Amino acid sequence: MLGSTHGTLTTDARRARVLGCDEQPSPVVHGRPAEGADVDVSGRPLYAEVPDLDRFFRPGSVAVVGASDAEGQPNTGITRQLLDWAGRVGARVHPVHPTRGSVFGVPCSPTLSDLPEQVDLAVLLVSDPLPLFEELGAAKVKFAVAFASGFAETGREGADAQARLAAAAERSGTRLLGPNTNLNAFQRFRDDLDGPAIALITQSGHQGRPVFALQELGVRLSHWAPTGNEADLETADFLSYFAEQPEVGAIACYIEGLKDGRSFLLAADRAARCGVPVVAVKVGRTGTGARTAASHTGKLTGADDVVDAAMRQYGVIRVDGLDELQDTAALLARARAPRADGVVICSISGGTGAHVADLAAEAGLELPVLSAAKQAELHQWIPEYLSVANPVDNGGHPVGDWRGRKIIDAILDDPRVGVLICPVTGPFPPLSDRLVQDLVDAAEHTDKLVCVVWGSPVGTEPAYRETLLGSSRVATFRTVANCLTAVRAHLDHHRFVRDYRSPFDAAPRTASPSFRKAQALMRPGQQLSEHAAKQLLRGYGIRVPREQLVTSAAAAVRAAGLVGYPVVMKASGARIAHKTELGLVKIGLTSASQVRDAYRELTDIAHYEGVELDGVLVCQMVERGVEMVVGVGHDRLFGPTVTVGLGGVLVEVLRDTAVRVPPFGEEQARDMLGELRGRALLDGVRGRPPADLDALVEVVLRVQRLALELGDGLAELDINPLMVLPRGQGAVALDALAVCR
Amino acid sequence: MLGSTHGTLTTDARRARVLGCDEQPSPVVHGRPAEGADVDVSGRPLYAEVPDLDRFFRPGSVAVVGASDAEGQPNTGITRQLLDWAGRVGARVHPVHPTRGSVFGVPCSPTLSDLPEQVDLAVLLVSDPLPLFEELGAAKVKFAVAFASGFAETGREGADAQARLAAAAERSGTRLLGPNTNLNAFQRFRDDLDGPAIALITQSGHQGRPVFALQELGVRLSHWAPTGNEADLETADFLSYFAEQPEVGAIACYIEGLKDGRSFLLAADRAARCGVPVVAVKVGRTGTGARTAASHTGKLTGADDVVDAAMRQYGVIRVDGLDELQDTAALLARARAPRADGVVICSISGGTGAHVADLAAEAGLELPVLSAAKQAELHQWIPEYLSVANPVDNGGHPVGDWRGRKIIDAILDDPRVGVLICPVTGPFPPLSDRLVQDLVDAAEHTDKLVCVVWGSPVGTEPAYRETLLGSSRVATFRTVANCLTAVRAHLDHHRFVRDYRSPFDAAPRTASPSFRKAQALMRPGQQLSEHAAKQLLRGYGIRVPREQLVTSAAAAVRAAGLVGYPVVMKASGARIAHKTELGLVKIGLTSASQVRDAYRELTDIAHYEGVELDGVLVCQMVERGVEMVVGVGHDRLFGPTVTVGLGGVLVEVLRDTAVRVPPFGEEQARDMLGELRGRALLDGVRGRPPADLDALVEVVLRVQRLALELGDGLAELDINPLMVLPRGQGAVALDALAVCR
Repeated sequence: MLGSTHGTLTTDARRARVLGCDEQPSPVVHGRPAEGADVDVSGRPLYAEVPDLDRFFRPGSVAVVGASDAEGQPNTGITRQLLDWAGRVGARVHPVHPTRGSVFGVPCSPTLSDLPEQVDLAVLLVSDPLPLFEELGAAKVKFAVAFASGFAETGREGADAQARLAAAAERSGTRLLGPNTNLNAFQRFRDDLDGPAIALITQSGHQGRPVFALQELGVRLSHWAPTGNEADLETADFLSYFAEQPEVGAIACYIEGLKDGRSFLLAADRAARCGVPVVAVKVGRTGTGARTAASHTGKLTGADDVVDAAMRQYGVIRVDGLDELQDTAALLARARAPRADGVVICSISGGTGAHVADLAAEAGLELPVLSAAKQAELHQWIPEYLSVANPVDNGGHPVGDWRGRKIIDAILDDPRVGVLICPVTGPFPPLSDRLVQDLVDAAEHTDKLVCVVWGSPVGTEPAYRETLLGSSRVATFRTVANCLTAVRAHLDHHRFVRDYRSPFDAAPRTASPSFRKAQALMRPGQQLSEHAAKQLLRGYGIRVPREQLVTSAAAAVRAAGLVGYPVVMKASGARIAHKTELGLVKIGLTSASQVRDAYRELTDIAHYEGVELDGVLVCQMVERGVEMVVGVGHDRLFGPTVTVGLGGVLVEVLRDTAVRVPPFGEEQARDMLGELRGRALLDGVRGRPPADLDALVEVVLRVQRLALELGDGLAELDINPLMVLPRGQGAVALDALAVCR
Repeated sequence: MLGSTHGTLTTDARRARVLGCDEQPSPVVHGRPAEGADVDVSGRPLYAEVPDLDRFFRPGSVAVVGASDAEGQPNTGITRQLLDWAGRVGARVHPVHPTRGSVFGVPCSPTLSDLPEQVDLAVLLVSDPLPLFEELGAAKVKFAVAFASGFAETGREGADAQARLAAAAERSGTRLLGPNTNLNAFQRFRDDLDGPAIALITQSGHQGRPVFALQELGVRLSHWAPTGNEADLETADFLSYFAEQPEVGAIACYIEGLKDGRSFLLAADRAARCGVPVVAVKVGRTGTGARTAASHTGKLTGADDVVDAAMRQYGVIRVDGLDELQDTAALLARARAPRADGVVICSISGGTGAHVADLAAEAGLELPVLSAAKQAELHQWIPEYLSVANPVDNGGHPVGDWRGRKIIDAILDDPRVGVLICPVTGPFPPLSDRLVQDLVDAAEHTDKLVCVVWGSPVGTEPAYRETLLGSSRVATFRTVANCLTAVRAHLDHHRFVRDYRSPFDAAPRTASPSFRKAQALMRPGQQLSEHAAKQLLRGYGIRVPREQLVTSAAAAVRAAGLVGYPVVMKASGARIAHKTELGLVKIGLTSASQVRDAYRELTDIAHYEGVELDGVLVCQMVERGVEMVVGVGHDRLFGPTVTVGLGGVLVEVLRDTAVRVPPFGEEQARDMLGELRGRALLDGVRGRPPADLDALVEVVLRVQRLALELGDGLAELDINPLMVLPRGQGAVALDALAVCR
């Protein structure tokens, strides 16, 4: 579970957090450029449309349709909560009820048309909100919230009703939150906490409860958007909006499905440009989760590996448990940019140090070995026989007196150290109370991150409840794993935003000269022949073997002479799959007679198998490279995707591939190769030369361009294999399969 | 964090746990067989030597050497704690001090030789315990505990001192706990808790604190063994002993390094025979952890994948965090054998259900879809539009009244359901208090496992502290992940013990007829030639290609005629590695002239490369199979290991291998294949026939036999490749490398 804060937070918390260390230039570039197209070459938007949600969260006036003060009515409790909330945020409330004169002493309007003023927000406490939208539009109400359920979460009929509701909302000009949402946005937030806050977005209100409860542990929460079925306003809208609120230090999300992949990416891009971390639980790791989530809010979940890749592309930190969501968001909201990436572990027990160091190294944290001088400094206070290289085993006793603080300060003073983690495995008040107080004091005087893992399962100890959770600047965790996950996310996030360049700024807005040629090759609904698919690739500058399509044995021999021996011959036709298994490929042909025989054999097999040919390909033979696959897929959430993988048995048996959602730049294409488990093959094994990585990356980027320009016209493209030759020699697409939509 | 209990626990808790469901026969077979050898063919013991630790944990009398009651002396506090503890367990205390007449009013003996009675236990509060062992032996003291530090944990000199201490203890006949241990065994345990308990073994006392603190949450702890440097008594001794104590429901271990791999396996085997679950944190996932742990207690950590495999072979549940250790051990100690493996998730929110179901499916739990009849039953109380297939979304409201209990009972009544998990994401007292009470009540009347995940980070809520943690039979967790880990471990453990057959019972005790032939081939300290290594394999019944070793071109041609064309020819010599890269292998030779040319070429290359040959191998050519590798390694902790992996690029780049520590049976050999990521290759891909798995398993078992019989004489054996032919056709070792020690 969770903890608290850290670092010298200035009153201008946003500035402190984003700018971090002085030498780091801020990567923040807001909004859209003044000129240029709003859409990329595939017709998709390049910048998020952000609704101005100020009037939603801080309305001047609110209408409550269906308000009630009658005993025993469910709407009565809700009305009371809304009145309380309006009182706190300073909004005027106008109950709307066809027959009541007043509700809780506030005069009622019979309909929305009779409101005494134009309202910012209407809360719709009715089972069928649809008929209200005409009036909402006429009354120019900015926002409406619909609690009613029975929409997309219930099946086909409900989805139709939701579509009608969405259409009505769009016609009206009133932005709608819901249906199937709740009162979470109108909770009482603690207003006595300061520093950067978490803003929370949840599709299921109940799942946001633990993050909301963090306020009881001293973590500030600024907003909660329970998006429900997202007939209109969606997760992405709140993400973009929260990213630009000065009090928001991090955004925590619980997502079951996304309404639209692109809008989510544009919102995540906005957060990345602002340097605001986004931490998200996304249901759908398994088919079970995806199905259940779909039945809960009626939304798509998309292929999980694509979701995963898309989130990583924009620096969204995906976690799996609500406890990780809490701990990671709380740390990222409140910790300033790290002064260094080095992590030191310091404990009162060598055993604890060994264990935590083991887990930290496995979590990918950097544990620098402290310098001899620093170790000598620590040994002033720590017995010589204890290791203080990192982890620092302080041996316990020095922690009980003045030496404890000296040790902490000496560690924090090391320029390679950005984070100090102190696991307090079990409370032993004579030592741990003093240790915790020293850490809290030290954290007041450092710009480094100080973390404590309070390992006791009890959690009622005063050192934990009062000293750490009180108003300390120490980030406090209950498990080592969550501490390490959060610290890793913190360091990764700041590295990410430091280097972030939005791929949308560089996304192609106009078609390349290749596009017209490509369009001419497309055959809607059909699979292209290998020859046509290769022409498509060649159009985008991807190298294919010298080859000719021939329709006679004599022409084959002539072609072989032009292409150059040895040659490969393959049957070519629009609907041929599994050529190799069918015997429709002949390799290593070195003479005219072999070519003539091969031509006859291939046409015989095709005839026998009932395969229709458009001819036989006579191709240059390319050997001695690493076989890769590069392809384009189509995700139902994110549209075109680009995949690269290791060919042969690796892609067939292990599916050793990496995927990205366009647009992405060269760095991401290189990162894809780094994700391959069999990556070492590209570097050369068993004395083979390293492969031409630059050429491979170039092919991936050209395939992306093709995917973007052909857009939804292309269902699938597979280059298999792409033969990547030794460094400096390029890459050749030996075979290709393309299916049009 | 942690939780509590479950199920109808009878007063004979051990019987209830082990027997579980009535229809399950108990696999318990204690102790060693009456006859037969105590050691296997490699000379390793087959059964654990278990010291009788009753007199350690419940001594009749205790000597305290170095006892003190002087103000400000560290030994004074320790003496006081020992006196308190002795009072509780009913032991007489005899302080030993050269000059004091009495300590805390108890008369002192000047030396151990002057004790008024023979004592069971001597606690040594002196900085150098070595000189005491002569007296300890003479006084026939059963056990001694040494707190002193400065031994193996400090480096070479300390390790030497520890070796002297261990030798002295062995001479004396007094069993020693420590050095570098502490008072943990003499803590005050809560004695008001009943039901099966956790017994705790830690090498670092501090790391046991959170498990000890579980008592404050209602979980019983029966023993704590802080083993420290293990000069004599080690983790394995306590493991074996605890496994046979009737009050112990589970054993929790924190292990930095093992003193001896074999003794650990024998102890784990003992626990598996008794059906007692062992849950362990083992440091050493990374090099950092292994090094740090070694510097802490001076013990070996072994290769982590071998440790992992060894633990799985004996059903030891390895976890990485102390929080998982707590939650898993507490559940396994207290939950009886499951009635069924099906898990149902029931929550007051569809979102929570979707999320938890997603994580549960990923954790490998079985979530049966409830029958139509059961769903109809649930829909009596739950609105029709909510999904109750599993996860069960109860929609919240029914939980607030009499329907809540009906829903729980209906789920528990389903024969496919063994476990009910209720995540309470956020406390909402009107619903969650009632829900929790209903679950506590239902748990009193079922033999199924009821789990609650209390998701609030606060943890001070009465429903959690009082209702759940009080004396309820509900297993309570603080995170979904820990709940799922523990439930998975619980189901796995009971499946494991149900099917467990000790491999030690079936381990070979005498050498096979192959052994003498094998011995004759061994060349201590040398690498064998390929030909000799293959003879070794053939000796153990592993098929090798027909082949002849020849020393002239003419002999090669004759050999090819006998072996049958096509043939493979390879240079053969004791010190040749990387034959293929050097061009020392010629394949697919189909004629006498090719064989003659190949012979000349091979000998020329060998001459040019300066490679000494004992001849040229002319081998039968074997194609069309799946290339595997099977090998023997030598782990410094566990001795010989057997590895199987996929050959070619998979083993080279991905190290796709599985390992086991002998002895193991056929089931384990089959499980090894299941662990391979590229396993599908064996089942046949791209229309290839499935491989002969039985033959592959047989080779693995024969290699194990070879490894056991040659024991430490063999440093390394690699069959690479082992060509596994299509089903029914066997497997052939095409190349082999053997290195003697």
